[in-house]
Amino acid sequence: MNKTLMTDFYELTMAQTYFNEGKKDQQVYFDIFFRKNPFDGGYTMSGGLEETIEFIKNFKFGEEEIDYLKKLGIFNEQFLSYLKNLKFKGDVYAVPDGTAVFPNEPVLTVKADIITAQLLETALLANFNHGSLVTTAAKRITNEAGNIPVMEFGARRARGIDSAIEASKHAYVGGCVGTSNTYAGMKYNIPVLGTMAHSLVTDCEDEYDAFLEYAKSNPDNCLFLVDTYDTLRSGIPNAIKTFDYMKEHNMNTNNIGIRIDSGDLAYLSKETRKMLDEAGFPQAKICLSNGLTAETIETLINQGAKFDSLGVGDNISKPEGRMGCVYKEVALNTNGTWEPKIKLSNDTIKIVNPGYKKLYRAYDEQTGYAIADVMSLYDKEIDKRNLKVVSVTDYLKQTTIDNFELVELQKPIFENGELVYNDPELLEKQTYCNEQMSTLYQEVKRTNMPAEYYVDGTDDYVNFKKDLIVKTRNLVK
Amino acid sequence: MNKTLMTDFYELTMAQTYFNEGKKDQQVYFDIFFRKNPFDGGYTMSGGLEETIEFIKNFKFGEEEIDYLKKLGIFNEQFLSYLKNLKFKGDVYAVPDGTAVFPNEPVLTVKADIITAQLLETALLANFNHGSLVTTAAKRITNEAGNIPVMEFGARRARGIDSAIEASKHAYVGGCVGTSNTYAGMKYNIPVLGTMAHSLVTDCEDEYDAFLEYAKSNPDNCLFLVDTYDTLRSGIPNAIKTFDYMKEHNMNTNNIGIRIDSGDLAYLSKETRKMLDEAGFPQAKICLSNGLTAETIETLINQGAKFDSLGVGDNISKPEGRMGCVYKEVALNTNGTWEPKIKLSNDTIKIVNPGYKKLYRAYDEQTGYAIADVMSLYDKEIDKRNLKVVSVTDYLKQTTIDNFELVELQKPIFENGELVYNDPELLEKQTYCNEQMSTLYQEVKRTNMPAEYYVDGTDDYVNFKKDLIVKTRNLVK
Repeated sequence: MNKTLMTDFYELTMAQTYFNEGKKDQQVYFDIFFRKNPFDGGYTMSGGLEETIEFIKNFKFGEEEIDYLKKLGIFNEQFLSYLKNLKFKGDVYAVPDGTAVFPNEPVLTVKADIITAQLLETALLANFNHGSLVTTAAKRITNEAGNIPVMEFGARRARGIDSAIEASKHAYVGGCVGTSNTYAGMKYNIPVLGTMAHSLVTDCEDEYDAFLEYAKSNPDNCLFLVDTYDTLRSGIPNAIKTFDYMKEHNMNTNNIGIRIDSGDLAYLSKETRKMLDEAGFPQAKICLSNGLTAETIETLINQGAKFDSLGVGDNISKPEGRMGCVYKEVALNTNGTWEPKIKLSNDTIKIVNPGYKKLYRAYDEQTGYAIADVMSLYDKEIDKRNLKVVSVTDYLKQTTIDNFELVELQKPIFENGELVYNDPELLEKQTYCNEQMSTLYQEVKRTNMPAEYYVDGTDDYVNFKKDLIVKTRNLVK
Repeated sequence: MNKTLMTDFYELTMAQTYFNEGKKDQQVYFDIFFRKNPFDGGYTMSGGLEETIEFIKNFKFGEEEIDYLKKLGIFNEQFLSYLKNLKFKGDVYAVPDGTAVFPNEPVLTVKADIITAQLLETALLANFNHGSLVTTAAKRITNEAGNIPVMEFGARRARGIDSAIEASKHAYVGGCVGTSNTYAGMKYNIPVLGTMAHSLVTDCEDEYDAFLEYAKSNPDNCLFLVDTYDTLRSGIPNAIKTFDYMKEHNMNTNNIGIRIDSGDLAYLSKETRKMLDEAGFPQAKICLSNGLTAETIETLINQGAKFDSLGVGDNISKPEGRMGCVYKEVALNTNGTWEPKIKLSNDTIKIVNPGYKKLYRAYDEQTGYAIADVMSLYDKEIDKRNLKVVSVTDYLKQTTIDNFELVELQKPIFENGELVYNDPELLEKQTYCNEQMSTLYQEVKRTNMPAEYYVDGTDDYVNFKKDLIVKTRNLVK
């Protein structure tokens, strides 16, 4: 299905304006950036580049799209025939999926003619917003869980079927060991996982019968859901009775365990651990689920809860955080010269970082930790030692950094319309995302009131930005 | 694309259990219900039935699905060949899209063989959760806006492209007058709407030039975005200058206006109104946008803000509320007898309303207002006068109602596998949703601390439920 019309309608009315004004060949740079990490967190893990690559590859107005636009009665023939032949011929630079990124820095940059650049806005934002929100949600949770595997169980609470399928993929990049979403498993080769539902238990006369039936049919994946009636007085005793039966009948008792899905998970898991150990099943695993967040996982660990795996649904696939990326024009080519562009605003925070920039990450040479992100105009040399950097949002925050290694964060994705990027396999993305996490200071990763990571410009860049703000404000007066 | 595998993996391992135990023909009833209205609201507007009808119509395990499951190495041949021939042969009853619904009542009921019923769970929940969340979000906002049209601008902030397209449809049912999402406009015949973006302004040397260019190309839809530099000192004066030009050049000035997207919308809109009126453009419309919620719209109105339309993105397409529907077994046919089923829990709120039920809404005969929803076992007569009703969650809340008309809320959707429901056009759904709203008391619709609508059972039903809880608890001891 052609999704090219997945564009806000004003992109088309603006495109017609550019077309009518003879501006169709005007080259522009647009940046995607966001102003706040989701979940009041200290970082964001990028996602959605894969979907964006697909969208751009398939960007084409077909018969059906042109017919529909024609019927609306507000677009002229010349413009529509121009659209019909439009292909993406520009450049895209972006951070790979799974990159740690921060507010106010360009995570994706489009260089294209003004009409194409404008028409891509909506889809690119939807992709980045969704991908980054879910990847970040998953990473926050898997990070708190540490070595304990987190299974993504979110399909039923996602935003529709297709969103659920995409979310499973992003969650996998964010560190989940697998998904309950079988379609996503098939489509993306993600391990599929699961336990059992309450209905299996209510469907039987007796909880023990239900466990036993399940054990016989799924001998190598015996996680019993124990909270249908009463976890400690019914569920666990019946699970133990089933494990005893399995042992007596020489069934595999290596992959046994239980899942608790309600009640106080800290208390119940500790009691359960004791009961399982005393019954001679120290190998039985405890899986916890029920609205888990990064914060509750941290608390469970602090309170000595006993668990071997976690199932997380809502807070990965349908997290309540916000990812509010925007797409702003930062430079315009007028008669062969690139002119920086800025959007002022009554809200200072809505001011854009102007110009076509390069975005670097400075890593501490000794420790490998990321110490600051630094942007600079694309054609400016950047000091490799004693680099003076200034916050792009608070010019009084200045510092000089030294003994660092600079890495450019955006990679070329499309050049002159051609895809030049080899998007990695999901498992590679997961590994990369883990590596990115390991370069962040603990203080930045804290769930509660994290330290603010430095997003700076070179001294030159920030002076350039300040001058442009003053110049533009003067134009207004 | 076949999405039948959009099912949680445990549905399949449970299905194999049922199959191996010779239970594949066991008939069951499953209910979908939720425990809390989203947004701390007093009501929910249902959605997602259309997607569920599509899913069930296309429910079929094809070659690719079976091959994938085979490769996992845990399903036996007989079970897989059973799956391959599986079709939906059951019944579905559900409330139509756009119905006002409330916690703990069955909004959708599936009667089918246990395996089919189980396999549908994930997709049906994802559809209902997404549809209802967005329809409710839109309805809360359009209700506060009253007669002022609300445009849905949410595509870029939705959960991926496909989710955005679905969300535009749900938002339309929820009362939005149109969408910015052009694809959704084409696919669902929803009016497409929009103004302009900041980039159109930054792309020009001058704000006035930008407005003028846009006016020339879009003479019948001239809403200028006025906050690129400074709303009152630059945006509005330049808009007025453009309107003057249009007037002088005999262009259409009937459809002119401005949009404000930042700053204090109450203050700026009042100042703007004065400036436009004084300049001789009382017909110029004011459109407001920027993170609007039902609550902020209420405040804007209370503070005398001046506006003629609203653009809402995030809080419709990506609302932060939760819709946490569940799907629970409520009855099982054993040897020809329907046996009610209940799930207890360490959390009392997680107890299910057992049995196959009918759900009625009682309307006040005089006023037409909805006074209570009442459930009863499907085969029990229900008093048409002096009906004693008891809350299904708090048995001390009892009352007797009189002078009411009873309407059954669930409609037959599938019967014996056949679609028997004629899903209405979107515009009809929008009208129906409006009518539903008009039957709710203002107190239930209040955004802040709304009154709790009565969700009751007949006296008989609640006694039946209590007895079953006691009986089941005794089994556990």
